[in-house]
Amino acid sequence: MSILPGFGLTDKPGILETTLVLVTCRWHRCSDTINYMEREKPSLEELFSPRGVAVVGASPLEGGSFATGVVQSLKEAGFSAIYPVNPKYSEVSGLPCYPSLRAIPGVVDHVVVGIPAESVLALLDDCTAKGVKSVHLFTAGFSESGYRERAELESAILNKARVGGFRIIGPNCVGLFVPKNHLVTTMGMSLEPGAIAFISQSGGHAQNLPFFTGPRGLRFSKVVSYGNTLDVDESELLQYFSQDPETKIIAAYIEGVKNGRRFLGALKEAAAQKPVVICKGGTTEAGKRAAHGHTASLTSSVAVFNALCRQLKTIQVDDMEELIDVLVALCFVTPLPRGTGVAVVGTGGGPSVLASDEMEKAGLQLPCFSTEIQAELKQFLPIAGAIFSNPVDATTLLSPKAIFATMRVVSKVPDIHMLIYHLGFYPVSRWGARQLYSTNFLQPVVDALVQVQQETGKPVLLALRPPPDLRGMKDFLAAQGAFVTARFPVFYSLRQAAKAMARVVAWNQA
Amino acid sequence: MSILPGFGLTDKPGILETTLVLVTCRWHRCSDTINYMEREKPSLEELFSPRGVAVVGASPLEGGSFATGVVQSLKEAGFSAIYPVNPKYSEVSGLPCYPSLRAIPGVVDHVVVGIPAESVLALLDDCTAKGVKSVHLFTAGFSESGYRERAELESAILNKARVGGFRIIGPNCVGLFVPKNHLVTTMGMSLEPGAIAFISQSGGHAQNLPFFTGPRGLRFSKVVSYGNTLDVDESELLQYFSQDPETKIIAAYIEGVKNGRRFLGALKEAAAQKPVVICKGGTTEAGKRAAHGHTASLTSSVAVFNALCRQLKTIQVDDMEELIDVLVALCFVTPLPRGTGVAVVGTGGGPSVLASDEMEKAGLQLPCFSTEIQAELKQFLPIAGAIFSNPVDATTLLSPKAIFATMRVVSKVPDIHMLIYHLGFYPVSRWGARQLYSTNFLQPVVDALVQVQQETGKPVLLALRPPPDLRGMKDFLAAQGAFVTARFPVFYSLRQAAKAMARVVAWNQA
Repeated sequence: MSILPGFGLTDKPGILETTLVLVTCRWHRCSDTINYMEREKPSLEELFSPRGVAVVGASPLEGGSFATGVVQSLKEAGFSAIYPVNPKYSEVSGLPCYPSLRAIPGVVDHVVVGIPAESVLALLDDCTAKGVKSVHLFTAGFSESGYRERAELESAILNKARVGGFRIIGPNCVGLFVPKNHLVTTMGMSLEPGAIAFISQSGGHAQNLPFFTGPRGLRFSKVVSYGNTLDVDESELLQYFSQDPETKIIAAYIEGVKNGRRFLGALKEAAAQKPVVICKGGTTEAGKRAAHGHTASLTSSVAVFNALCRQLKTIQVDDMEELIDVLVALCFVTPLPRGTGVAVVGTGGGPSVLASDEMEKAGLQLPCFSTEIQAELKQFLPIAGAIFSNPVDATTLLSPKAIFATMRVVSKVPDIHMLIYHLGFYPVSRWGARQLYSTNFLQPVVDALVQVQQETGKPVLLALRPPPDLRGMKDFLAAQGAFVTARFPVFYSLRQAAKAMARVVAWNQA
Repeated sequence: MSILPGFGLTDKPGILETTLVLVTCRWHRCSDTINYMEREKPSLEELFSPRGVAVVGASPLEGGSFATGVVQSLKEAGFSAIYPVNPKYSEVSGLPCYPSLRAIPGVVDHVVVGIPAESVLALLDDCTAKGVKSVHLFTAGFSESGYRERAELESAILNKARVGGFRIIGPNCVGLFVPKNHLVTTMGMSLEPGAIAFISQSGGHAQNLPFFTGPRGLRFSKVVSYGNTLDVDESELLQYFSQDPETKIIAAYIEGVKNGRRFLGALKEAAAQKPVVICKGGTTEAGKRAAHGHTASLTSSVAVFNALCRQLKTIQVDDMEELIDVLVALCFVTPLPRGTGVAVVGTGGGPSVLASDEMEKAGLQLPCFSTEIQAELKQFLPIAGAIFSNPVDATTLLSPKAIFATMRVVSKVPDIHMLIYHLGFYPVSRWGARQLYSTNFLQPVVDALVQVQQETGKPVLLALRPPPDLRGMKDFLAAQGAFVTARFPVFYSLRQAAKAMARVVAWNQA
């Protein structure tokens, strides 16, 4: 029996029948059976471009709070209509502070809520009166707390939202980040818009992903932290982003899904349109328990979730580090390689040996160069201490000219589909007086690699190892900046590059 | 049939017989059959405390070289008797430069050689005349190059060393690092002596390990990069360090072993005395090929090597990152936990969920806290947005007092053997005005954790996530410094902490 035609997940009998049950895994709320008069719900598109934002719970107190941080972030981002709300204060971060939502003179489309759970219901009446379109509940302590009365409070909130005609994001999340519209809740992000949409059941991951990946060049169309999925959920978001013209890649961190059937349809639609990269939290017993405590998610069967992802040709990753690496690969490896053959060029024998092991373990191939190719390399590379068979270990740091020559020779090998150059950041004085990482040295390397990519048509990847000290980090960040500006994918180790490329090549071939 | 009584590697018949053949895997040199009059060989102990060091091939040229870097490193380290040798110059780095070894007025025990392979034999005659004890050949391009005449040159070098009564380190290596005696070849290392000996067939790893681990508090008794193992090899080094009173932990990066039977004996002796942590390079086909090109090693059967390591109770790791983490655990986790039960405390729901998954996947256990324990925690932790079941996610950054109280409560759980506190380094302004990472905040946290460890007798581990920006890195390094000064193990992710602890606990239980 197939209840989902076209989704023959595995050959294992019986698994199809259990799919929906296992994927549908949210803690059921009382609201699921309540009937009420619903107003028409605003679309997600409206949520992402609010004309005015109220921030309830902001304060000028030393020590800060989430709401205060939101006011500061919006101000720094240049958002024009910010309305702090707190009856105790008349000013927050240099802006007039209002005693209530109703007291705000301008239009308020979006409300960020950072007050205790007990006070939320009363606030929602004001939201209805003010005609807002969306409420982001940073406030936590609802169904995820495990208390029945808190789950009931969630239901009452949803009821008010439906009657009031506004949407709820969260509760228990950090809400929206829309660079184009200067809509942020956290500082430290680049406001340059990009092609990645990230939907995250975790607020921490939603904040960390843009922050940690900024220097590697990742830019976002929209980031949505959706927490307990009381209203806006992963399925609606997937559907939206599969159609959003600003979004070319969808990334997701998911603990549990709210409605298995809808999720299946939404994921199918999204994966047919765009690359979808998914990190699933709660794949072990301890992880499942944590996920339930975190967002009240009853995580689905891992086997079923994995089978779905495979079936629908999404790219599933093990952790957020790998999610970042895969996004870097999807954004900057051009063209995406059609095979797993890799040529590795760099400095360091031991690192080259371990890199070879790691590449092969990850599923890439390092074809051995023929004696003819090796002879060509020996014409311009020093023989002493070098390795020529792939990886190429040039012992001392190569000149831009030698890098170009090496890359051009090895790129001729037919089963080489991509080229990796690796570089460690060590004390400048390690080899005497040479200024290894000065811009004078690095920019010609960047230019050489640009030329390699143009001439050979094979993508060039960078593996740069971050140093452990501040001085080295300064050099490292400058080098990373130069490579990222030239639109190269930068990975922080050969192992990470290998793992990400193995995933992306497998997806590209499927 | 057992050719090695006491080394029943596995139950698999036949594997014992093949062990020696597979483990003995060096490229045979002509010298192996040459007879000559040998002088008595200096002991390794003599090698580590030279009275004078000559550096052949140093130059004052812009651009530098390995030999020039050695002169600068020795000078910076305060080594007293440094003799640059180069007939072209009269001064290098502010020191008198000599035209030949023989022209040096003082005693020379150790010679660092950075001249081309063709010139080495003539130099060795001078070494004999000068009565040196050891020659470190940085020079590469010998047997690892694959040319027969170069392998023969190696044999001739060994011959001269035996007749001249001095030892050879290398060729194709970066030689000795003995902090206590100010003997270094590379800058950027801490000269504070420590308890770890590291023997490495790779010069890159020998330089990187002390450099990258300095900020995490690892300190070394001696580091030996031994390259092509022409004379001093891994077995002799293992034997030496198993008896060296300054060495409490032995770490090794090995591509191939020179003599299987000797290695077996040496490893057995070492592992019976001290923890031995081994990273094996060349475990895949590509890695084996690279290892052969790197140090002329014919890597042994991985299965046999792994079986040996298991049998002899060494700690085998997959890569250098893991080797570092295991060393941090061995040095700073006190007491070593007797079980795999871990309590995780920190901030961030999503990170906590993934951490739980990663802990369990690595082989640690996160026992679920009882409702009584959870109730105790709820007395002083905020309920909203928190997780109490293990991991404990406190949503907002905990005060030192709350960290102490939390740790004390969870450490009472009998099957908790270690406590992990995790902290990410994000923009200071993320949560408003709070200065998250100021010394004012961090030192009380350090003090609280010291007290937890003292009162509960359970080890506390730190997982600190390095940030991607320079400002964050400054905060991060200061925090790491504070924790390391208080002798805490610092890991850079929960995943890395989990992997290392799983290895160390398994070893400790064996």
